[in-house]
Amino acid sequence: MTKIWNNIPEIKKELDEVQEIVNKNLKTKNTKSIERVVNHLLQANGKRVRAGLLILSAKMGNYNKDRILPLAAAIEMIHLATLVHDDIIDDADTRRGIDSIQHKFGKDSAVYTGDFIFAKAYRLLAGDYDLEENRITDSMEKVCLGEVFQNENKFNKDMTVRRYLRIISGKTAAMFGLSMYAGAYESKLGNFKSRIIGYSGYYAGMAFQIIDDCMDYTSSSAKMGKNTKVDLLNGIYTLPIIYAVNNDNNKDIKNILNKKEISDLDIEKIFYYVDKYKGVEESMKLAEKYTKKSTDLLRRVSSGKYTDITQKVLENLINRKY
Amino acid sequence: MTKIWNNIPEIKKELDEVQEIVNKNLKTKNTKSIERVVNHLLQANGKRVRAGLLILSAKMGNYNKDRILPLAAAIEMIHLATLVHDDIIDDADTRRGIDSIQHKFGKDSAVYTGDFIFAKAYRLLAGDYDLEENRITDSMEKVCLGEVFQNENKFNKDMTVRRYLRIISGKTAAMFGLSMYAGAYESKLGNFKSRIIGYSGYYAGMAFQIIDDCMDYTSSSAKMGKNTKVDLLNGIYTLPIIYAVNNDNNKDIKNILNKKEISDLDIEKIFYYVDKYKGVEESMKLAEKYTKKSTDLLRRVSSGKYTDITQKVLENLINRKY
Repeated sequence: MTKIWNNIPEIKKELDEVQEIVNKNLKTKNTKSIERVVNHLLQANGKRVRAGLLILSAKMGNYNKDRILPLAAAIEMIHLATLVHDDIIDDADTRRGIDSIQHKFGKDSAVYTGDFIFAKAYRLLAGDYDLEENRITDSMEKVCLGEVFQNENKFNKDMTVRRYLRIISGKTAAMFGLSMYAGAYESKLGNFKSRIIGYSGYYAGMAFQIIDDCMDYTSSSAKMGKNTKVDLLNGIYTLPIIYAVNNDNNKDIKNILNKKEISDLDIEKIFYYVDKYKGVEESMKLAEKYTKKSTDLLRRVSSGKYTDITQKVLENLINRKY
Repeated sequence: MTKIWNNIPEIKKELDEVQEIVNKNLKTKNTKSIERVVNHLLQANGKRVRAGLLILSAKMGNYNKDRILPLAAAIEMIHLATLVHDDIIDDADTRRGIDSIQHKFGKDSAVYTGDFIFAKAYRLLAGDYDLEENRITDSMEKVCLGEVFQNENKFNKDMTVRRYLRIISGKTAAMFGLSMYAGAYESKLGNFKSRIIGYSGYYAGMAFQIIDDCMDYTSSSAKMGKNTKVDLLNGIYTLPIIYAVNNDNNKDIKNILNKKEISDLDIEKIFYYVDKYKGVEESMKLAEKYTKKSTDLLRRVSSGKYTDITQKVLENLINRKY
């Protein structure tokens, strides 16, 4: 995934600077206990998609590095804090390949480490940015709503595509939208253009999350299989399985989901059925639609070198590891 | 506790306005799931000590209601968010006399409702306040540290007074300090005075938390007994019990704490020993010292009507329901 930035050296370089700002902000001398947790967290370099998209959209306008990079860092920190809090709920054992905070340091540390990162992120955002009032809190509100709505739909065997889309609209797309909006707006692209670019980011986020959920079924690595199992045990049904259930006239999948315990064999069966009923292919089609929406919107208001690069990045998002 | 504001009608009236700002900020049309949780939360009117102290310290200077009340609301919201997250860790069943969010709506809602309230609070703070850079995030950092440190010392039978003080310094005193500092600073009392007034708030917070922990032993109501039990079962040892353990040469209390299960009879015994070894009286002495430090500092830099009122409030904090 990080590969996409390898092709764009100037973004990659600035993403490293963003990472430094994140590190600098999260490392504190006085708070040894949190520091330990944060250090652990920083080991796992994220994909920094949000920061990258923010920088790219900013480069479409009147780019000011000193203003943009801390903003990108703040967005990454908010994302990081959300991940830490997600762990509490998912009871996820690993995150980005390393032990999750929740698992390694306990629930309490996860709650307060998340809060700590939020505090630092909001402080960065409280700088002299001109972002349209309530944009950030609106996005955070949507993230929270998405997560709560996901929670409400746990073990819902009648999960619909519509509900799934509402969930990912909050938990992923809102922050993608905010990232691209914020970059554009801070680079003086104006209210109208920035909003359209924000929508472009929003649809890219929809596509991104769908692909993420597809990867739980397409990647052959054991780790991915484990993620799928965790999701299923937590009653989180993502798009590939929803499509498969919809096409499964024998209700074989529902019968498995209705079982009190899901064995490794059951997981294998689910993989088989998702494959049989083309759950991933259907999901990918929808992701491609969102990507097209995303790039169309972008093209409508912007052109030039960085728009071209952004378009390629948005298109590559759905081609990763697939 | 709310009684103290009854004697100060002008503060009480403004605290009601603060509550309205809080309500207005937390009520959202689009987020039904969170709204339900927030409505539930707003039923329980808190004591609003932090907001009250902020307003009082602001009134010592060049008071501007339109700037101060949203600031007080933000501080209350941060406190509220912290309470919601505390619930996750304490597994507390009741909070402010009503079912805790955690208990009523599950862990997930508690995590994201807290995050949502933080987002709204930080947005308010991102207004055009002049607060010295990093003050808010520093305080939040201290709150997080206090909670994490408390966690690290759970079931520590060798808990010391020193460790206890470090915990409450973070989890309570830091926000009290921030409240009084912020009020003073925003009312143009200048950097030096505001810092001293902030320290006054800090020591008041120390006293406040000690009293809070004493009340678990002095209040005869069943509810309070339950809180004590919850704390003990969670391995949280507060000042009265620490003093009692230190005076207990027979190690009777430690023997109880070492048991795997703590029965209602054990709780009764602990109450008996805390009483016998004067755990509450010793704690109260320390609280009184902190209150004196608090009012002395305040007196050193401020005088006049609102300073007099504040002094009385600070002194009353340790007399509540005791």
